[in-house]
Amino acid sequence: MNIAIIGLGVVGGGVYELLRDGKTGIHVRHVLDLRAIKNLPDGMLTDNIADIIGDPTVDCVVEAIGGVHPALTFVTAALRAGKHVVTSNKEMISRALAPLLEGAALHGVQLRFSASVGGGVPWLHNLLRQKRGDTILSVYGIVNGTTNYILDAMAHGMDFNTALADAQRMGYAETDATSDLDGLDARRKCAISAALAFDAIVEADDVPTLGIAAIRKVDIETFRQHGLVCKLLMHAERGTDSLSAYVEPTLLGPDNLAAHTPTNHNCITLCSQHSGTLSFYGQGAGRFPTAENIVQDLMDIDAMAVNKGRTPMPLPMDNEAEHHRYYIRTARKELLDGLAGENWNGALLTEPMSVSALHSLAKEIREMDPDAFFAGLAEYGGETGA
Amino acid sequence: MNIAIIGLGVVGGGVYELLRDGKTGIHVRHVLDLRAIKNLPDGMLTDNIADIIGDPTVDCVVEAIGGVHPALTFVTAALRAGKHVVTSNKEMISRALAPLLEGAALHGVQLRFSASVGGGVPWLHNLLRQKRGDTILSVYGIVNGTTNYILDAMAHGMDFNTALADAQRMGYAETDATSDLDGLDARRKCAISAALAFDAIVEADDVPTLGIAAIRKVDIETFRQHGLVCKLLMHAERGTDSLSAYVEPTLLGPDNLAAHTPTNHNCITLCSQHSGTLSFYGQGAGRFPTAENIVQDLMDIDAMAVNKGRTPMPLPMDNEAEHHRYYIRTARKELLDGLAGENWNGALLTEPMSVSALHSLAKEIREMDPDAFFAGLAEYGGETGA
Repeated sequence: MNIAIIGLGVVGGGVYELLRDGKTGIHVRHVLDLRAIKNLPDGMLTDNIADIIGDPTVDCVVEAIGGVHPALTFVTAALRAGKHVVTSNKEMISRALAPLLEGAALHGVQLRFSASVGGGVPWLHNLLRQKRGDTILSVYGIVNGTTNYILDAMAHGMDFNTALADAQRMGYAETDATSDLDGLDARRKCAISAALAFDAIVEADDVPTLGIAAIRKVDIETFRQHGLVCKLLMHAERGTDSLSAYVEPTLLGPDNLAAHTPTNHNCITLCSQHSGTLSFYGQGAGRFPTAENIVQDLMDIDAMAVNKGRTPMPLPMDNEAEHHRYYIRTARKELLDGLAGENWNGALLTEPMSVSALHSLAKEIREMDPDAFFAGLAEYGGETGA
Repeated sequence: MNIAIIGLGVVGGGVYELLRDGKTGIHVRHVLDLRAIKNLPDGMLTDNIADIIGDPTVDCVVEAIGGVHPALTFVTAALRAGKHVVTSNKEMISRALAPLLEGAALHGVQLRFSASVGGGVPWLHNLLRQKRGDTILSVYGIVNGTTNYILDAMAHGMDFNTALADAQRMGYAETDATSDLDGLDARRKCAISAALAFDAIVEADDVPTLGIAAIRKVDIETFRQHGLVCKLLMHAERGTDSLSAYVEPTLLGPDNLAAHTPTNHNCITLCSQHSGTLSFYGQGAGRFPTAENIVQDLMDIDAMAVNKGRTPMPLPMDNEAEHHRYYIRTARKELLDGLAGENWNGALLTEPMSVSALHSLAKEIREMDPDAFFAGLAEYGGETGA
């Protein structure tokens, strides 16, 4: 199989290196990059997408530039030209999954994006495979390595600012870590996972999201006193005619595998009708793990291992039915008047309430107190899942 | 695709139920069972293997009777007749993997056995898939639910005999639990996993194995004082021109995911060159999880998703190079004379020693003291794997 790689950055360059010896039977014909990349064979580098789209010997395009534009244009053109596409681009996939799958089906080619959630963890591959012969009831897990690194460091006694600075120093967090800290990265991955799990159309913008920017040492200490750890989790569950999906800091007891996910790792779980709980754990980012996940997608296409896509269906978003208890810490105690619950070192552990209700309340409280912190209390057991 | 199921017991019956509605496109044509099974469609039940082998409309045979004889005869005949075979039979596979793969290759059909290790966990599927584009460095994990149930109960304060009786009462352990307690079941799964991971021929009988029959409350309490838990783990690692493979009770720190595997679950890990540590967690046994894993194998065959087999190579077994510390508890202290190490509540934590050396020593000590207990101290971190 012959491929082209669009974008020879960290991940695209990793794919190039993994395929360079030719042992996989997958050969790189073109590399598109606007920079002057050295050490490529003569004639391989181009800055013109037409050189790739117009080459009939290219079977598959690896898109590795990230972001929506111009990636979406390039990918759409490649599919239309009858080329398979493999990408790790979570922004683009979460924005345009349904039309992209339609385009791939129309042109009889495959679109694979395993590395867009979980980095090096074969999560989406296994989710799709399990779905073929089983019914997915729910998915949940740690899908953002940056926030997990910070939460893990805080669980070991570090304060928030030091943990964030550490994560930035080690390259796990961007200088502007807002997208990670506010849960926006996890939200995209939640939307993609829910869409595949339930054959639904899920807009990332519709997924209620709480981040960890406001978490402080006092929270972590309180959780510890109750035998709990805090992790940033995506959650999605299929109802009868609806689905729930949300991203929240979540308190886990020691019997949940996700509670034991260290540093910047990912741990993602599906609960299915026949197989119960299945969890997948590994490196959620990093050059070679992510590149390897892309190479595995390429090999699946090369082997004609078709996971036949089903037509995605629009499903109403319903976070009313999903209830659990929440930890709310705010200096403006009067905002909690009328809410029943337990006193946890001055913070409130609420009675069970709906995801919708909490997220509305959180919005109100944060307008008055930007430092308020919210976390859901996990109802997952280590054994039975959601 | 049309299939026949040999043996309509717990697992075979589960496969039948999962396929009964026909939605998967996989249709059961024959069921072979010596018992008078009721409620099957007319003409489906047979007690004669020739009815299956001789039916040209049967594409694939599911073998679910277990044990070596007559399963091996039936499977060999099916492969020779040009039929794919799917099985969960770990005794047969660990005994005859290499010749069976040769037979499948000769006749241009597939042999799949994902459910033979890990029950409902898609372990072997992911191991084979990862291996296509990556190099497997080591595999390890919890592959026996019975012993994990007992060890988990003991970690929560139960004594050995009560935990064993509980496991038997709940159907997790046979009345004669010797095969589980002595690690013989885990040994077969270790041999199968190592053979696939390293393209090697591995005889289960060559895998040094220590079980948990001798473990007592005092051991568990001592481990707890050192912040450790004890799990029965299979381990296999590829050297330059050799491999190591063994089954042992293993002490794990809290940073290892396997330490947090509750009740009768499995947690199995591979460490690869490109992807680092990848772990797979779920139900290691049970009717529908195991049956679903078989159905997934069937769907992979149906989709022509060929994981091309490589020719297995004989590799010498070498457990000399693998060194770690061991916990040894024996009432016959004089047997430990000359061994350096730490005193752990009267037991000895040795200096690092080779797997070969310990297993030889263990054999000697157990001849003098059948109640002696041995456990390796894990060197796995939660982060970097072996």
